[in-house]
Amino acid sequence: MITREDAIGKAGRALLAHRLDALVASSPPNVRYTAGTSFHTQVSIPERLALVSIARDGEPCFIYCAIEEGHAKEESWLRNMRAYTEFADTPVLVLADALRQQGVASGRVGVEERHLSHRDYSALRAALPGAELVAADAIFDRMRAIKTPAEINVLGSAAFATDAAIRAAFAQARIGMTEREIGDVMLKEARARGGGALLFQVLCTGQNGFKIHAEPGDTRLDAGGVLRTDFGLVWSGYRSDIARTAFARPLKARQADTYRRLEEVHQMVIAAMKPGVRASAIFHICTQAFAQRDVEFTAPHIGHSIGIGGHEKPMLQPFDDSVLEPGMVFMLEPLIRVEDGLYHTEDMIEITEAGQRVLGRSADWSEPMVVG
Amino acid sequence: MITREDAIGKAGRALLAHRLDALVASSPPNVRYTAGTSFHTQVSIPERLALVSIARDGEPCFIYCAIEEGHAKEESWLRNMRAYTEFADTPVLVLADALRQQGVASGRVGVEERHLSHRDYSALRAALPGAELVAADAIFDRMRAIKTPAEINVLGSAAFATDAAIRAAFAQARIGMTEREIGDVMLKEARARGGGALLFQVLCTGQNGFKIHAEPGDTRLDAGGVLRTDFGLVWSGYRSDIARTAFARPLKARQADTYRRLEEVHQMVIAAMKPGVRASAIFHICTQAFAQRDVEFTAPHIGHSIGIGGHEKPMLQPFDDSVLEPGMVFMLEPLIRVEDGLYHTEDMIEITEAGQRVLGRSADWSEPMVVG
Repeated sequence: MITREDAIGKAGRALLAHRLDALVASSPPNVRYTAGTSFHTQVSIPERLALVSIARDGEPCFIYCAIEEGHAKEESWLRNMRAYTEFADTPVLVLADALRQQGVASGRVGVEERHLSHRDYSALRAALPGAELVAADAIFDRMRAIKTPAEINVLGSAAFATDAAIRAAFAQARIGMTEREIGDVMLKEARARGGGALLFQVLCTGQNGFKIHAEPGDTRLDAGGVLRTDFGLVWSGYRSDIARTAFARPLKARQADTYRRLEEVHQMVIAAMKPGVRASAIFHICTQAFAQRDVEFTAPHIGHSIGIGGHEKPMLQPFDDSVLEPGMVFMLEPLIRVEDGLYHTEDMIEITEAGQRVLGRSADWSEPMVVG
Repeated sequence: MITREDAIGKAGRALLAHRLDALVASSPPNVRYTAGTSFHTQVSIPERLALVSIARDGEPCFIYCAIEEGHAKEESWLRNMRAYTEFADTPVLVLADALRQQGVASGRVGVEERHLSHRDYSALRAALPGAELVAADAIFDRMRAIKTPAEINVLGSAAFATDAAIRAAFAQARIGMTEREIGDVMLKEARARGGGALLFQVLCTGQNGFKIHAEPGDTRLDAGGVLRTDFGLVWSGYRSDIARTAFARPLKARQADTYRRLEEVHQMVIAAMKPGVRASAIFHICTQAFAQRDVEFTAPHIGHSIGIGGHEKPMLQPFDDSVLEPGMVFMLEPLIRVEDGLYHTEDMIEITEAGQRVLGRSADWSEPMVVG
């Protein structure tokens, strides 16, 4: 996990590099990164903002709803705290006051323009007429893109445990079981390995296999069917996200052939992921490899970075020209559409000085797994 | 559940009443309300916007990421659909184009200023220089505040099943079990009653009882301890949200006394909830009743409306002067802080012509439940 020293140190260097007087985190992942904690209600009740204001000097200020006082005091590494009273106070006006106290009433303040609502942004701008609000989204993206060894440890263990839970659930899948039954086994296997809150569980077979985000339902696994999952949970504040595809016996030759082509392209793309290569180039290598093999590929990306957030930057997509660097951690997830559904596989790739390292593959997935 | 006729009908009347030429939904609950479906990724990947644009004439336009095509076509009741390609397209520019095609390039367009990010709002404004963007958040709040009988049915059943799952899990709780073990039983009981995705599960005992949103962990239930939960899941797109407090044997006289005072105030507030009374007045009735009984009460609200969203408007808080009307559905949830933790209870209250109706109380909670 990120430490206070690493996170606040990175923020301090970013302030200098971008000539900012303060940096304000508002999205749940950036609040967690800079405060050491975030609140579930930031997602379920978005108006109940939590904010971290980091100035050049002094302790960063953590602003949260008083309802979360116990949680904040126990879990945050920040010591300059301001609780606001919901409905009586306006969170961004409390932020404006904190910024004035931090001496940046007339400075350059970096905020998350991709996260702050238009209403909140407008209220903040009106409350700080002397300050210049600057988009800081990319600054936070960049801070979080290079993981520390401790973060890579947590992410790798989370990916491994998630992969192992999928493997274990697939091994228990039987023809005639419903998606929901297989999904419940998978969740239990993940919990037994220490998994926390469930983020998403795509799990489908039959016609549902054509829906990318199909949740487990009452459809039963048929002989010869495709079983696909995309499964993610929270592990010590970090995310897992693993997709796998298996086949109910008997495996058809055509399924095995398609699966092997997917795996072949996947391994080829992994080998291309090295420091100095652009994210967009990785995307193009993948699409060309599929085209050469006559495989239909239309996804807008083939992967994303991961950490506290689910889709972090850089993204492996055609318009992201970020250069891969050691310490970046990607989920590479080619997804193809064939006659009996979508085939999907997903692995965690750490970019290293020497090239790359696959993290979290708990078993050999190079050959199609046959279940039932 | 809301129907297309009800939702689009309400939107059409709102357009006329507020002299708008179009109304744009962007938050997940408002998209679900107007399109009949929403996407999990609207929450997990907020930049992957889904939007519904409703003009005075013609079919509303549903804009979503092409990745969700299968889901959208199968689940939405809208037929005018525009899929955008992630990264290649900018969702709000696709929206601007849809608005132009709907003939409102120069009209008054209601948008969600509490939801649209500053970046997206600014891009939309720049793309539609002739249009006037108007805050429509309160218009959507109002549309969703009065539930249809079908919505009340779903909500009542969801609350009942959630309450029954809590009661069943508490009945199986034993001294020495961990919070996580009790929580797992509760989740299983909810699933057996048809519960869908878990939204939140507060479940705590001992010192954790002072943290309002404590997730189940490894703390064990002690004799004489307090066991508190606040539990919500999705049921056919609608939410449940029930809080209860129980006591591990032996029940102390002081605990029973405090619990009965909580229940007494709760019942008194329920009786006060009638058409014509202001939400703020309900809040004050509750705080005064606690003050008269020397119970510490500091929460910023005592409840909220519920539906597709978790904290819908009106809220039972001191600054919300909305008048209660038949068809509104509230979660009334007084929460008090005493020497051994927080005591919390929560019930669903439907406002009717005659007064109110408690929905979803599956058992008699008027006396403290003793477990273990």
